Amino acid sequence: MECRAWFADAAAQRGLDVETDGNGNLWAWWGDPSAGDALVVGSHLDSVPDGGAYDGPLGVVSAFAALDAVRERGLTATRPIAIAAFSDEEGARFGVACAGSRLLVGALDADCARALRDGDGTTMADAMRAAGHDPSRAGADSERLARVGYFVELHIEQGRARPVDVGASTPRNDEPHGLVDLDAPVGVAGAIWPHGRWRFEFAGRADHAGTTRLEDRDDPMLAYATAVLAARDTAMRHGALATFGKVRVEPNGVNAIPSQVTAWLDARGEDEARVRAFLSDLSGLTTPPRGPMHPRDLTGVRALVTEESWTPATVFDVKLRVRMAALLGRAPVLPTGAGHDAGVLAAAGVSSAMLFVRNHTGVSHSPHEHAERDDCLAGVDAMAQVIQDLAGR
Amino acid sequence: MECRAWFADAAAQRGLDVETDGNGNLWAWWGDPSAGDALVVGSHLDSVPDGGAYDGPLGVVSAFAALDAVRERGLTATRPIAIAAFSDEEGARFGVACAGSRLLVGALDADCARALRDGDGTTMADAMRAAGHDPSRAGADSERLARVGYFVELHIEQGRARPVDVGASTPRNDEPHGLVDLDAPVGVAGAIWPHGRWRFEFAGRADHAGTTRLEDRDDPMLAYATAVLAARDTAMRHGALATFGKVRVEPNGVNAIPSQVTAWLDARGEDEARVRAFLSDLSGLTTPPRGPMHPRDLTGVRALVTEESWTPATVFDVKLRVRMAALLGRAPVLPTGAGHDAGVLAAAGVSSAMLFVRNHTGVSHSPHEHAERDDCLAGVDAMAQVIQDLAGR
Repeated sequence: MECRAWFADAAAQRGLDVETDGNGNLWAWWGDPSAGDALVVGSHLDSVPDGGAYDGPLGVVSAFAALDAVRERGLTATRPIAIAAFSDEEGARFGVACAGSRLLVGALDADCARALRDGDGTTMADAMRAAGHDPSRAGADSERLARVGYFVELHIEQGRARPVDVGASTPRNDEPHGLVDLDAPVGVAGAIWPHGRWRFEFAGRADHAGTTRLEDRDDPMLAYATAVLAARDTAMRHGALATFGKVRVEPNGVNAIPSQVTAWLDARGEDEARVRAFLSDLSGLTTPPRGPMHPRDLTGVRALVTEESWTPATVFDVKLRVRMAALLGRAPVLPTGAGHDAGVLAAAGVSSAMLFVRNHTGVSHSPHEHAERDDCLAGVDAMAQVIQDLAGR
Repeated sequence: MECRAWFADAAAQRGLDVETDGNGNLWAWWGDPSAGDALVVGSHLDSVPDGGAYDGPLGVVSAFAALDAVRERGLTATRPIAIAAFSDEEGARFGVACAGSRLLVGALDADCARALRDGDGTTMADAMRAAGHDPSRAGADSERLARVGYFVELHIEQGRARPVDVGASTPRNDEPHGLVDLDAPVGVAGAIWPHGRWRFEFAGRADHAGTTRLEDRDDPMLAYATAVLAARDTAMRHGALATFGKVRVEPNGVNAIPSQVTAWLDARGEDEARVRAFLSDLSGLTTPPRGPMHPRDLTGVRALVTEESWTPATVFDVKLRVRMAALLGRAPVLPTGAGHDAGVLAAAGVSSAMLFVRNHTGVSHSPHEHAERDDCLAGVDAMAQVIQDLAGR
C-alpha cells in the first residue's frame, strides 16, 4: 500500500491522471485514455516474501524516469501514454500469479478470484475490502483493454538464460548465458517458457517415531525425498527446470512418522513437449526404485499427482520485438522461465514486449537480487528510446 | 481440559481426594498422602495432534477400574494409594515431552518451562494462566515426590519390540516382535531406550524457480532429501530408529528455490553407543555423495547439526520388574523407544515400573492406535493384581 501511495504521488508530481481499475491495477495517464491505441509501459509493485527490491518496482520506476527523459527532450506524443502498475503479480498471498492482469483480460474468473483464500483463511474479496477496494468491481474489462495499443514491460533479468539466436536445442555449458556473458546491459524478451505446477501427495501411515521398527513403517517422507532427487536428475536429462519449493507435512511432529507429505513441483522448459516428457518420466519414478540408497520395502508409497496449473508458452509480438531489438542496437533476445503481466496481455492479444536489465548473478526472488546502477540507467534510456519510437513524432 | 474435569469427577464418585500440584499434575488419593510411601498408579490424559485414544488415557482409566476391582474384593490398603494424571506428557504444544513430571522432579527448570513458546508465540506461563493455573507455582516439589513409594504406569504397547530375553544384539526378522507374536495380552517394561533430537539446518540460496539454471542453484531441499534417505539407510545398518518427521522450509513458496530447510531428526536405539555411531555416520553423509542419483555439484550444502535433547537409557527398578513379571505369570519383559512419565520418575530415583497392553499392529500416535477390549480388561486385571501385591495385606 505504501508503494501504491508512492505511485499516486509520482504521477501527481508529473501531472498525470491516476486511475485505479476494478482489479486494483494503477494507471497514470499522459493524454486522453479515450483516444485509444495507447502506449502503456510499466510493471508491478508487489514482491514475493523475502524477495528483492528490483523484481517489479524497477519496471515502474524506470517507466516514470523514461517518461521524464522524453518529456525533457520535448517529445510530441502521437498517442496517449500510460504508466501501469499491475496488482498482485507475484500471487504471494493468494497463490495466483498475475492476478491483476489476468482479471483484467478475463483469464482469471472474478468469482474464483474473490473466493481465493490466503494462509489465514482470508478471502481475496475480504482483502480487497480491507484495502478499500470494492470486490464487486473485479473482472474482465475489455473496454479498458481495448485502449491499449502496445504494452512494454521493463524487468530485471532473472536467471541467466541462453539467448534464442544461439541455436542448439540442448544447452552446453560453454555457451553464453544471460546478459552478463553477452556483455549487454539490456535485452529484449523472446518468449516466456511454458510452465506448470503439480501437487504431489505422498500418503503414509502416522506412527510413533520411537517405537515403530523401520520395517513396519510406511513413511511418506522417504517417498518425498526420493522424488526430490529424482526430479533434479530427470530435469537435468530433459533440459527442463524443476523445483520442489513448498512442502506440507502432517502432523509435522518431531517424534511422529508423518501420515502425509504434500509437495508442490514447479516445472518449466523451452517447449511443452520437453516439460511433459520430464513429468512423465518423473511420475514413473515416484515409486522409489530399489537401489543402494533405499533398498528396503518402500512400495506402496506412490504419489497422487495433480496438475494445479498449466500455462502454455507465450511468444511476444515478433514485429515489435524485432523493431525494439533493432532500435536498441541489436539487443540480445532472451527467453524467460518466469511469468509476467506482459505475457498475460500478449496471450490476450495485446501487442506486448519486454526489456530485461542485466542481473550479474541472475539471482532473483531473493534479497540478493541486484542490478548495477549504470545498467538500470541503460534500462531507462532503452525505455525512453522505445517511448520515442512508438509514441513520438 | 475436558479430560481433566472427567478425572476430577471420576475421583469424586469414588470418594477420592483430588489435588492439583504446582505443575498441573492431578492426584486422586485414597488414604492420607502425608503417611508417605504411597503406591501411585496412572499415566497422562493429553495426546499428540491427530493421535489415538489409548496413549495416555488407557493408563488413567485402567487405574480407576483396577482400584474399583480391588476395593470390591475388599482390599485392606497397607499404604496410601493415588491415581495420577501427569500434565503435558506429549509436549505437543511446547515441544518438551513429560513436562509435568519433569517439572515435578526438577529435571525441567521452571523458568525455562515458563518461557517455552508454542507455534503461535504463546508462552507456557500464559497458557497456564489461561487454564486457570498460577505459573509461579511450577517447579520441583521434592516433598510431594518423597511421598511416592512406587509408581506403576499402564500404557498401550507402542511398536512391536523384541523382548529382552531373546538375546542376540541385532534383531532378526524371524524373532518374535511385540506382545502379538508372544501371544501375551500384557507385558512389563524393561528399559526405555536412550533417545535424542537433532536439528539439521540446510542452508541454500533463495532464487526464482522459473529462471535459475539447475547448475546455478544452491537448493537446500536436495541436501535435505539426501539426508532423509541416508538416515534410513544408516539407521538400518546400525539397528537404530531414525525419523525426520518435522520440516520447515523458507520461504516455502511453489516458485521459490528455498533459502533454508530446517528438519528435526529423532533417533533412538538399544544403547547410547549405537545411537551415537549412527549419528556420526549420518553427519558424514549430509554432504551429498556423488552417485547416480545426484551427480551434480551439490557440495557446500552441508547441514549444521545441533543436538536439541538427549535422554539416556532408563532402566526400571529390577526388583520391582521381576516381582511384577512373576506375579503376572512370567509376563514378557519389553524395552520401549518411547519416553514416559514412569521413566522420568525412575530417573529421579522413584521405584517405578510399567505395564504394556497388547497393540496388534503396534501403531501409535495415530487414529489407528488400537487395543482389543479383552486385552484392556486383562490390563486392568494385571494392574489390580499389582495394587493388591504392593498395597494389600
